[in-house]
Amino acid sequence: MGLGEKIMALIVQKYGGTSMGSAERIRNVAKRVARWKSKGNQVVVVVSAMSGETNRLIALAKEVSPQPDPRELDVMISTGEQVSIALLAMALRDLGIKARSYTGGQVKILTDSVFTKARILDIEGNNIKRDLDNDTVVIVAGFQGVDADGNITTLGRGGSDTSGVALAAALQADECHIYTDVDGVYTTDPRVVPEARKLDRITFEEMLEMASLGSKVLQIRSVEFAGKYKVKLRVLSSFEEEGQETSGTLITLEEDSDMEHPIISGIAFNRDEAKLTVLGVPDRPGIAYQILGAIADANIDVDMIIQNVGHDGTTDFSFTVNRGEYMRARKILEEQIKPHVGARAIDGDNKICKVSAVGVGMRSHPGVASKMFRVLAEEGINIQMISTSEIKISVVVDEKYIELAVRTLHSAFGLDQITA
Amino acid sequence: MGLGEKIMALIVQKYGGTSMGSAERIRNVAKRVARWKSKGNQVVVVVSAMSGETNRLIALAKEVSPQPDPRELDVMISTGEQVSIALLAMALRDLGIKARSYTGGQVKILTDSVFTKARILDIEGNNIKRDLDNDTVVIVAGFQGVDADGNITTLGRGGSDTSGVALAAALQADECHIYTDVDGVYTTDPRVVPEARKLDRITFEEMLEMASLGSKVLQIRSVEFAGKYKVKLRVLSSFEEEGQETSGTLITLEEDSDMEHPIISGIAFNRDEAKLTVLGVPDRPGIAYQILGAIADANIDVDMIIQNVGHDGTTDFSFTVNRGEYMRARKILEEQIKPHVGARAIDGDNKICKVSAVGVGMRSHPGVASKMFRVLAEEGINIQMISTSEIKISVVVDEKYIELAVRTLHSAFGLDQITA
Repeated sequence: MGLGEKIMALIVQKYGGTSMGSAERIRNVAKRVARWKSKGNQVVVVVSAMSGETNRLIALAKEVSPQPDPRELDVMISTGEQVSIALLAMALRDLGIKARSYTGGQVKILTDSVFTKARILDIEGNNIKRDLDNDTVVIVAGFQGVDADGNITTLGRGGSDTSGVALAAALQADECHIYTDVDGVYTTDPRVVPEARKLDRITFEEMLEMASLGSKVLQIRSVEFAGKYKVKLRVLSSFEEEGQETSGTLITLEEDSDMEHPIISGIAFNRDEAKLTVLGVPDRPGIAYQILGAIADANIDVDMIIQNVGHDGTTDFSFTVNRGEYMRARKILEEQIKPHVGARAIDGDNKICKVSAVGVGMRSHPGVASKMFRVLAEEGINIQMISTSEIKISVVVDEKYIELAVRTLHSAFGLDQITA
Repeated sequence: MGLGEKIMALIVQKYGGTSMGSAERIRNVAKRVARWKSKGNQVVVVVSAMSGETNRLIALAKEVSPQPDPRELDVMISTGEQVSIALLAMALRDLGIKARSYTGGQVKILTDSVFTKARILDIEGNNIKRDLDNDTVVIVAGFQGVDADGNITTLGRGGSDTSGVALAAALQADECHIYTDVDGVYTTDPRVVPEARKLDRITFEEMLEMASLGSKVLQIRSVEFAGKYKVKLRVLSSFEEEGQETSGTLITLEEDSDMEHPIISGIAFNRDEAKLTVLGVPDRPGIAYQILGAIADANIDVDMIIQNVGHDGTTDFSFTVNRGEYMRARKILEEQIKPHVGARAIDGDNKICKVSAVGVGMRSHPGVASKMFRVLAEEGINIQMISTSEIKISVVVDEKYIELAVRTLHSAFGLDQITA
């Protein structure tokens, strides 16, 4: 299905903070929404806060309280999206389009009560359906919901994507469009590799790996949601001129059997990593749980986990965390874990990065891993940790090699654009 | 009752935008609330948006839409108070005080659906009572509510005072404190008359007249509300140091029969006025309704209304409006009224002001009006319009005389401070 060919479809569109970044940009979003509406579609729009607004609010909160109470922080930062929905509704009405804004609580988007990181449990949405039937564009605040007690919650950074997909699922929308400042999903970040190519389609599995590996295009939970509820997801640019719009990247449910799928679809990377190792821990059952339990209790997300085979009754246990959590995680290991489990020492490095090759094609093509390790070795890049899944291989390397590693792999796996 | 003498009282305190103007000021408000709480009181706090925030939001709305849709404007500007409640709750928790914020919708404060100028119909408040019983300070967003359909509404400028008084009434609070940047109600604006005195008490009727005549200390609707529901209202300064607090001005239900009440309690004035006259309208029944009906339909508030006895079958009809509405009102008169009622001409002046003497004492002291006119005449000030009620006399004079008129009347009615 091409863009705009289908008549009387129900489309959910999500516009991010950059797309909503100024009065002029908001009016442009309104024009784009109006075009989709005028083609006979029913349109639900999910918006983020204007770019910079959430950070401004968090900074203000921290000025008042060094560690703001999470419930109150959600009351505060949810106002960013509330301002956006009102502005877009005003702009649409000025174009003669019936439009009506809803906060997460008004929809209502029911979540659990984990403030600042809530998860969507259910969407009521009766008022949305009524408005759509009444020829009205519905504008919903992304990133936010309410818990069963009526407290305002937020979904965590990037949560507006999740709001969009969840609404598309709840309303059984025909497509969910994620508008962003790039025109689709690329084989890698074009700022690092100018030869990066835009993908016309990518599978959910691949997109999920790309997102979890550091690709900023889509928030991982939104991709999970879309996969689970079979929402047809499309990434599009909100900055393309009228008439010049491309159809972005479609996230497909299944591999397209008609076409030859490339072995590797993209190279993802993440600078925001740090590595921690507990050296010389007793090699007995339950040790991994003891270490990671304390980290999880502190609400620190762990990414890669590696435990080598032990010798002399002890082993080394390594894992990676978000770089911002490095000091906190290290403190827990030093103060709680080391004396408790009788480890020899704690080691760490917050100058590492993760580079990953992703592709459903590697299922049917063995030898991808060995090729990856060979190519990196040829460039003199030492691999510190390795982690694999069915459709991705990730390596941890010294941060200084990040651009070199990404460029080398992008080229070696045949992803470079063919320039005329 | 002096401040802080009563134990286990239920106090509603309202802090305005200036009191909430910065992180530091918010922490100071938190300290003040904590002191009231620590004396054993139950405390409900109503807050305004940080100073400047509502104007910033309105400006942003107008950047997007020259005439923002009122429903959406309310969605947007209500965020100002939502940020304030969260910040104050954070600051109180940092002081070890249990605190919880509520938006108008969460309380819930039920209003009618007149967006940007809604009126409170009912307050549910079960969650507030539960929190108070649970030793928690409750913080409520002023200025806002929800209508029966769950739409966010706002109460109009100064509406936070009304929110505070309405909550005090609904909760049957012992006192409602209105914290502001002045330390009480004065006999007139001290910036115009340095000899102005702070009043220890003033009756509701007088306060109502003062507010409606331009005194900015309290919003008129909040005084009406307080009078109607017999809420004990006190105006206090939020900038007085700990230990240096004065008890502000108490708004009393009745004249204090124990004490000699002054004839005049204060001189109010309002620069923000404009005068319109429909000249030579046929002197027949229904003409006032025809003229003012059109003005009311345009949602323009009319203040003074004067119609002189007619001659030759015609009469002149004058009224005053807020200066900001002058051009709009004049256009309605020229285009709709003049041809329709067959008036000779439309005249107007937007360089006028209103000066009023207010006091319940004038009921039992005749001659106040004649004294007022004599004093103004002695200063060569021409009176353009006169309007009286049982406890006030207002005159419209040329704007250039405003300070002279206020000073002269303040002194003539014995309101000047006795300096040592």
